Amino acid sequence: MVIVVRKDPDPAQLQSLMDWLKSLNMDVHVSRGENMMLLGLVGDTSTVDIDLLMALDIVEDVKRIQEPYKKVNRKFHPDDLVLDIGGVKLGGGNFQIIAGPCSIESQEQICSVAHSVKAAGAGLLRGGAFKPRTSPYAFQGMRGKGLELLLEASRQTGLPVVTEIMDLSQLPLFENVDVIQVGARNMQNFELLRELGHTNKPILIKRGMSSTLEELLMSAEYVFSGGNEQVILCERGIRTFSDITRNTLDLSAVPLLKKLSHLPVIVDPSHATGIASLVAPMALAAVAAGADGLMVEVHNDPAHALCDGRQSLTPEAFEQLVKGVNALRPYAFQGIAR
Amino acid sequence: MVIVVRKDPDPAQLQSLMDWLKSLNMDVHVSRGENMMLLGLVGDTSTVDIDLLMALDIVEDVKRIQEPYKKVNRKFHPDDLVLDIGGVKLGGGNFQIIAGPCSIESQEQICSVAHSVKAAGAGLLRGGAFKPRTSPYAFQGMRGKGLELLLEASRQTGLPVVTEIMDLSQLPLFENVDVIQVGARNMQNFELLRELGHTNKPILIKRGMSSTLEELLMSAEYVFSGGNEQVILCERGIRTFSDITRNTLDLSAVPLLKKLSHLPVIVDPSHATGIASLVAPMALAAVAAGADGLMVEVHNDPAHALCDGRQSLTPEAFEQLVKGVNALRPYAFQGIAR
Amino acid sequence: MVIVVRKDPDPAQLQSLMDWLKSLNMDVHVSRGENMMLLGLVGDTSTVDIDLLMALDIVEDVKRIQEPYKKVNRKFHPDDLVLDIGGVKLGGGNFQIIAGPCSIESQEQICSVAHSVKAAGAGLLRGGAFKPRTSPYAFQGMRGKGLELLLEASRQTGLPVVTEIMDLSQLPLFENVDVIQVGARNMQNFELLRELGHTNKPILIKRGMSSTLEELLMSAEYVFSGGNEQVILCERGIRTFSDITRNTLDLSAVPLLKKLSHLPVIVDPSHATGIASLVAPMALAAVAAGADGLMVEVHNDPAHALCDGRQSLTPEAFEQLVKGVNALRPYAFQGIAR
Amino acid sequence: MVIVVRKDPDPAQLQSLMDWLKSLNMDVHVSRGENMMLLGLVGDTSTVDIDLLMALDIVEDVKRIQEPYKKVNRKFHPDDLVLDIGGVKLGGGNFQIIAGPCSIESQEQICSVAHSVKAAGAGLLRGGAFKPRTSPYAFQGMRGKGLELLLEASRQTGLPVVTEIMDLSQLPLFENVDVIQVGARNMQNFELLRELGHTNKPILIKRGMSSTLEELLMSAEYVFSGGNEQVILCERGIRTFSDITRNTLDLSAVPLLKKLSHLPVIVDPSHATGIASLVAPMALAAVAAGADGLMVEVHNDPAHALCDGRQSLTPEAFEQLVKGVNALRPYAFQGIAR
Repeated sequence: MVIVVRKDPDPAQLQSLMDWLKSLNMDVHVSRGENMMLLGLVGDTSTVDIDLLMALDIVEDVKRIQEPYKKVNRKFHPDDLVLDIGGVKLGGGNFQIIAGPCSIESQEQICSVAHSVKAAGAGLLRGGAFKPRTSPYAFQGMRGKGLELLLEASRQTGLPVVTEIMDLSQLPLFENVDVIQVGARNMQNFELLRELGHTNKPILIKRGMSSTLEELLMSAEYVFSGGNEQVILCERGIRTFSDITRNTLDLSAVPLLKKLSHLPVIVDPSHATGIASLVAPMALAAVAAGADGLMVEVHNDPAHALCDGRQSLTPEAFEQLVKGVNALRPYAFQGIAR
Repeated sequence: MVIVVRKDPDPAQLQSLMDWLKSLNMDVHVSRGENMMLLGLVGDTSTVDIDLLMALDIVEDVKRIQEPYKKVNRKFHPDDLVLDIGGVKLGGGNFQIIAGPCSIESQEQICSVAHSVKAAGAGLLRGGAFKPRTSPYAFQGMRGKGLELLLEASRQTGLPVVTEIMDLSQLPLFENVDVIQVGARNMQNFELLRELGHTNKPILIKRGMSSTLEELLMSAEYVFSGGNEQVILCERGIRTFSDITRNTLDLSAVPLLKKLSHLPVIVDPSHATGIASLVAPMALAAVAAGADGLMVEVHNDPAHALCDGRQSLTPEAFEQLVKGVNALRPYAFQGIAR
Repeated sequence: MVIVVRKDPDPAQLQSLMDWLKSLNMDVHVSRGENMMLLGLVGDTSTVDIDLLMALDIVEDVKRIQEPYKKVNRKFHPDDLVLDIGGVKLGGGNFQIIAGPCSIESQEQICSVAHSVKAAGAGLLRGGAFKPRTSPYAFQGMRGKGLELLLEASRQTGLPVVTEIMDLSQLPLFENVDVIQVGARNMQNFELLRELGHTNKPILIKRGMSSTLEELLMSAEYVFSGGNEQVILCERGIRTFSDITRNTLDLSAVPLLKKLSHLPVIVDPSHATGIASLVAPMALAAVAAGADGLMVEVHNDPAHALCDGRQSLTPEAFEQLVKGVNALRPYAFQGIAR
Repeated sequence: MVIVVRKDPDPAQLQSLMDWLKSLNMDVHVSRGENMMLLGLVGDTSTVDIDLLMALDIVEDVKRIQEPYKKVNRKFHPDDLVLDIGGVKLGGGNFQIIAGPCSIESQEQICSVAHSVKAAGAGLLRGGAFKPRTSPYAFQGMRGKGLELLLEASRQTGLPVVTEIMDLSQLPLFENVDVIQVGARNMQNFELLRELGHTNKPILIKRGMSSTLEELLMSAEYVFSGGNEQVILCERGIRTFSDITRNTLDLSAVPLLKKLSHLPVIVDPSHATGIASLVAPMALAAVAAGADGLMVEVHNDPAHALCDGRQSLTPEAFEQLVKGVNALRPYAFQGIAR
């Protein structure tokens, strides 16, 4: 951390700042110039509150040099994290496709899709029971009943399941769920993240619509800091000025997150684009960039899906996609970018 | 709503679409061209799910004409909503300043700030007990104890209080709070919004960092649809490429929200800019644009505030600001933009 | 095009609007509802000025249905455009890598890089003679002398060359250049585009930092409308809130541009990321998404490049990249997204 | 400038870096920590190329501390720049409104508008002769003939004129123009900026759609570095995810630019919003925030304007606006933010 001190600081204030920094066990290196003074801080700065420093009259600017996250930082955890999800491995070279419908609609629907995606090669089943919808008048999901149907589909197929939690109060219902998903809109629901840090299930955190990679990693750090060291990161598109797709898929997030952290990184091309015909090219691109997995919406009857049908693949299209992905995988980017 | 049908649609699919639309009590007007066909829908389209339509093979595009919100739509509620908050009126020409510290830190601190801001002219007191912080290692607020101190400050000064809820489970603690704030990160926490729709307290909803005005209004519609018709909208800056301020304050939101909706609209220049010296110019600009109120961070010792000190005003600076705002108010924009 | 007319329009104004639309040879279909009236326009609307319509008192909104570009629209040009650049083909299944240094610095440098990239498999040579730099104090390129050195490298290697024009006045110097590049900052320099429409050279247009795909296609339409029907589109990253890379590479632009237009689409992973270690994963991702080519910065001594060394590959790294790209190409996305 | 050196750097490379920095007359202060080393550079770093440093293997990151602009930096020029434009003063407390039509359409039109805006209180006349239009099929302006009509309107009213240049080749036609405008799309047309630095006319530079304030100031630095020290900065809205207005007006740019630079800062609420009914609230907000002037589109017949009629005011509405602005001005933000 570097602190830029204003020109001609009040000596008493400067001394008080230096004393406080030393009390935090920081080594302080001073560089004096004509127009300013730099204080270089050496030590563990992850707990120094940058806002506190910025509020001081004598401080002009503060530049962070070290990342503010530690438990999810590859610098301190050079080996890839490998998760074991009901016998299915993810990360560290273990690639998985998570597939299923946006919403669970009926037992027939979820079981039919589950059998299809398993046959096509999916390793995990997804399906939404609690659905975040912009409009209070739109279908909000089957909720508790939906979770039961999802677990039934899991029993029939043997596929572990991933499904989204929307509020802490729903946590008891997730006892038999394999992976708990935190949606983009909840990526900074810190009460939820902290509580999930006390569970022993893998948590799949989707990047918020306008979240930086550092913020995503800080949300993973919340879970880790509670003791749960099983997190999957998911890039699903960010909000930009571009209005032709629902979101803008930021694939540079894949090599960057894998460089900054040891956590597995997957990509959701369905939500990222919102358009079924873009799912295949973006899925292939994500794999080429080095993603550890994909999350894809599949529906047996997209035109009558109760939500997001526009971006869902048919089981046939999904089967084609899995073949394409598997063919491409050996030629994907390997290793860590620097 | 206008549906753009692809060239040469399958006649059976087209008939099935037309039948479905009519079953929803829509009048359908057909315009046939060489390269496409347009279906103009006339009727209440707020409950038509645009995703369902987009998923149909024969549909190329769907354009919404009417707003998807009704209960917070000025078209159906031409008169300004006026809220009575413990005797303090907001909206419809009643201007209020909400002031106080980012975080409640001690009884001395919150009471001292409360007396100062009341003396300077604030109408309501703010103070955070539950604090959303990006880092799990940063100060998270005094929580329940903080709420007690805030209510004590309210008793001493008579100022009604505004404070943020972060999770549904905290709701019982908010019984004596006057206005419940939903923060930017929770603007699309739909479970929370739905439950707040069953309370009888004014809800202050802050615009999400990357939320459109329509999404903000849909979140207010969630609260209204539960029966609680007391909502205050707050512009607090959006996330853009511009990196010199914490957020980019979007002041055009003020006249636009007041045109689209009858709800009161306030502005938070402290979070919008993150820099104390920009609070005054942006507060004056917000008032000039027609805001119904301001929300301003004030701390008796900004340099030692436990969070966001950088953007807090001293009581003296706040007093100056109130004087400036009151002097400018008679010359602010009046009325509704078209 | 659909015109939304306000409730209870003035009948004389409405008649005048209808007459004007008919004078433009539009068929107008009227849908009347309780709260508004829709006018569906059928005919060639690409020359209708949307601003003119929006300015009318009786018009509430205008929604465009048809694309405003025609000459670069795949609807009217279903077959891929294939360019022949000094014997090197691009588009329609012909994949090319354009490689070379950001700036031309000396004859040794440009010739050395040219021989290296040719040996590694590049089809065209790039090199900047006129350099757009944010700072007036930064190296601005070798200008005319640089073009001469670039052409000498072309003679030695037989590689056709691509280089950027910054101002119309430089056009006479580009007589022997094979492809003229219009940089991101000039994408909407309409005087330049119009004049390039009168040349008979392929024009490579880079997407502006905050340009929509429609705006990029309209810039290509400028060139086509002058008679020059040879344009290459290049995605090179857009500006978003994300600050960890120089720009955010928007790879969904690849399948979308190829769906909307018949022009070849290439990707520049060097400028998109600004970081050498991200060039390989992003290049592979671009190819997987279906790009017709890549544009990559290569420098024989990146650490001493006079500009953008940070994002340049060494000749060895480039050779590895070409091998990786060629291995992956058979498994890339094929065809047009719907 | 602070250079973050990687852990365990190659000693020879480190020595070579230190030597190079000293050869540039930099004082280098070293702070050594466990995980990295910081080099604090003291001296004039405005000419150090950050890209060159970043390209070095041993460098992990570079943080700029000082602004890269000097001639337009308030630190070195504490007093406001006051321009004298044909007897009309702008800056340093001298407030001006620039008004007129988007496009010059005929002598009657421009002269009629000129007389109206002068009577209402405008200090300068604007009018576009060369028009940047996204579509090659839209009206492109009257060009040379338009400039003649504008100058005739200037002669009749005595108002100095502001008009946009789109290409260097047009410069000879601007001999009698008072202020040359560089539009948002040309803000980084460096060839144009450099040449305008050799004229002796005030240059009005509009902020690019996705330009940071630093980039805007660097463009002004281009003009200053050529010898022309007369520049006006104009905020006109940036491109964000928000789609309800044409652009998002960033009013915090006003106090920030005035803090960072001594140049006058004006605001264009017409282009920023694209909607006539938002011009008044945003103009008042801009003035409240401390702007030195406004640029407003006025047309005698907005519904039949050949471009941008939607955002133009009638002469009557403009007269009202001027009255409102003049009434509010005494209560606007004064002084420099810190």
